Amino acid sequence: MDYRKESLKKHKEWRGKIEIKPRVEVDGKDALSLAYTPGVAEPCLAIKDNPELSFELTRRWNTVAVITDGTAILGLGDIGPEAGMPVMEGKAALFKAFGGVDAVPLCLHTKDSEEIVKTIKIISGSFGGINLEDIAAPRCFEIEKRLIEELDIPVFHDDQHGTAIVVGAALLNALKLAEKAIETIKVVVNGPGAAGTAIAKFLISLGVRHMRVCGIDGILSPNDETLNPSQHELAVLTNPENERGNLSDALKGADVFIGVSVGNIVTPAMIASMNSKPIVFALANPVPEITPEKAKEGGAYIVGTGSSEYPNQINNVLVFPGLFRGALDARSKISEAMMVASCKAIAQSAGEISVDHLLPLAYEKAAHERVAKAVFEAASRRR
Amino acid sequence: MDYRKESLKKHKEWRGKIEIKPRVEVDGKDALSLAYTPGVAEPCLAIKDNPELSFELTRRWNTVAVITDGTAILGLGDIGPEAGMPVMEGKAALFKAFGGVDAVPLCLHTKDSEEIVKTIKIISGSFGGINLEDIAAPRCFEIEKRLIEELDIPVFHDDQHGTAIVVGAALLNALKLAEKAIETIKVVVNGPGAAGTAIAKFLISLGVRHMRVCGIDGILSPNDETLNPSQHELAVLTNPENERGNLSDALKGADVFIGVSVGNIVTPAMIASMNSKPIVFALANPVPEITPEKAKEGGAYIVGTGSSEYPNQINNVLVFPGLFRGALDARSKISEAMMVASCKAIAQSAGEISVDHLLPLAYEKAAHERVAKAVFEAASRRR
Repeated sequence: MDYRKESLKKHKEWRGKIEIKPRVEVDGKDALSLAYTPGVAEPCLAIKDNPELSFELTRRWNTVAVITDGTAILGLGDIGPEAGMPVMEGKAALFKAFGGVDAVPLCLHTKDSEEIVKTIKIISGSFGGINLEDIAAPRCFEIEKRLIEELDIPVFHDDQHGTAIVVGAALLNALKLAEKAIETIKVVVNGPGAAGTAIAKFLISLGVRHMRVCGIDGILSPNDETLNPSQHELAVLTNPENERGNLSDALKGADVFIGVSVGNIVTPAMIASMNSKPIVFALANPVPEITPEKAKEGGAYIVGTGSSEYPNQINNVLVFPGLFRGALDARSKISEAMMVASCKAIAQSAGEISVDHLLPLAYEKAAHERVAKAVFEAASRRR
Repeated sequence: MDYRKESLKKHKEWRGKIEIKPRVEVDGKDALSLAYTPGVAEPCLAIKDNPELSFELTRRWNTVAVITDGTAILGLGDIGPEAGMPVMEGKAALFKAFGGVDAVPLCLHTKDSEEIVKTIKIISGSFGGINLEDIAAPRCFEIEKRLIEELDIPVFHDDQHGTAIVVGAALLNALKLAEKAIETIKVVVNGPGAAGTAIAKFLISLGVRHMRVCGIDGILSPNDETLNPSQHELAVLTNPENERGNLSDALKGADVFIGVSVGNIVTPAMIASMNSKPIVFALANPVPEITPEKAKEGGAYIVGTGSSEYPNQINNVLVFPGLFRGALDARSKISEAMMVASCKAIAQSAGEISVDHLLPLAYEKAAHERVAKAVFEAASRRR
């Protein structure tokens, strides 16, 4: 099926992928008097006296805002807020289908970090959590950091941490198959944007000790004065030796390649220069850094992509519904322990793993339930 | 039934009166690839090229934001944004049940007019319309005016115009029964806040020529320098003769009393001083300006209140679902002609009218459909 052409047709038919429905009766005098005036005055006054009751007496406990500014929609770049809505609506549909979470898609008409933070803070009292989505780097780092500090509900930038968690899960299972220990492998991450930065940091918290991150000018190194602050931080974290070189240099002898950059920049020869049993996650969309066919030609042991057209789709759909379900149920902000727990739960939900089956399918409900449970338990342990 | 006590119990059971549901399948590879990646890129790009297509390819065409700052919730005053949510959720449930409209309830953590306007503008690309709710006067006038000017989607402050429209509908039918012409009656409006101001202006556009508006210091008059700008405007509009006096003075010889103020301020003797067949709409909540029993004691011919406990509940639930249904279907901002059309449609939907049956019941679906049709036609005529 030509998904893109067929999708446009379907979106015209659908005219919206979500809807908002009453959960209570309002047809009739008593029903209306309980759900609306005059009865509704009583829950209002209860919340006035104790705003925490907004999590008991309204839908807030189960409701997340899915928010973009339209600047990094899929691999399409800055296409504007309205144009981001089909993705946000899709996400809202997935939140409900796989996590039971009510999600409100919101597209913001501003690219100013200060205005984005302010707008989200002003509306935050209506929500139990904030899922940031498709906001360009490096702005997304500052926005997420401030919101996490200033709000007391979970805030999660899916493009960063959702991607990092599912990459981590795929890596854990790939290493099992390759019989390598996470502490000894050498990892190369290509593309130091939102996803690449989060992947690098998350893999370190999973136990990775040897890593190089490459940008458009090659290996990030602390002495490079052209780096932005978040890239510089990454360089200090991963390359204290101040090694220089391009992506080809970095890949020589590496165990793992993780690409979150652009299509067709890795050759079979570069794969052939890696260590034994190379693990290749080429996640650029719609065209991967190297196709699975070519990666295998270069000797890749395991290949994953962002696409459903190949085995091992590495898709953050596996993360956000269960992660927010667990966080909402625990009434907890999202900690690193909760992210690690969700990562391990995904890896463990894959069933019998093989080089062509690293992860559960995105629509396997049991996997989402397992993620939710693991996140809830990790949140509760922290308390 | 003690609605308020029972309502608190029900809200605890319900934990939210609305939910957000997918309208499309996402279980399975093809379904996911069409509703989400990779297919969704195509409708995104179509909207990028033509943002108007956001009304065709997403739920925007059917989605309204119901927005409050929590400063004038019911008759409870400034109880804070979270405490307003039970009302906003109730409203969202009614929007869907009676108008088929998807409504997102949002409570804003700011009372600053500039911030409210800015926040709503920033999120407006996600919505087909904006329903402002329970925002205190006089701030609400400025906020509504600016949003109407600066947005190209319908913006409607329900406490003002919803109330005005349903009062107008009740008045049209009451005058029929009393056999009085709208051009010759004398009307007294008590309470120059959001609702009172809108009622006064709307009744003028329905044909009322003689009106006095009373505030806490009596009849508004242009020479009174203590009035705020919107009250001064009302005084100029209704009292060019600069008549002075209190509410008792104003009521002498009046045909119609409309109260949107506070409880128990009108006596049977004041009703007795009115013209023949007095029409009394005592809409203060929860305690009306005068109870129907006492109004009848003073000789009232027809009495309406805001409460479902008495005949003739004058409730703006009759207005907003159909009004927005019509406006969304016509893709039109809300004109005076559309408001007048909705008013007449409500009056005509009452069936066989009597002194105890001026209006259709709030949950009569046929009435809402008639309103939607009339509004749609009025919008289309303007084009």
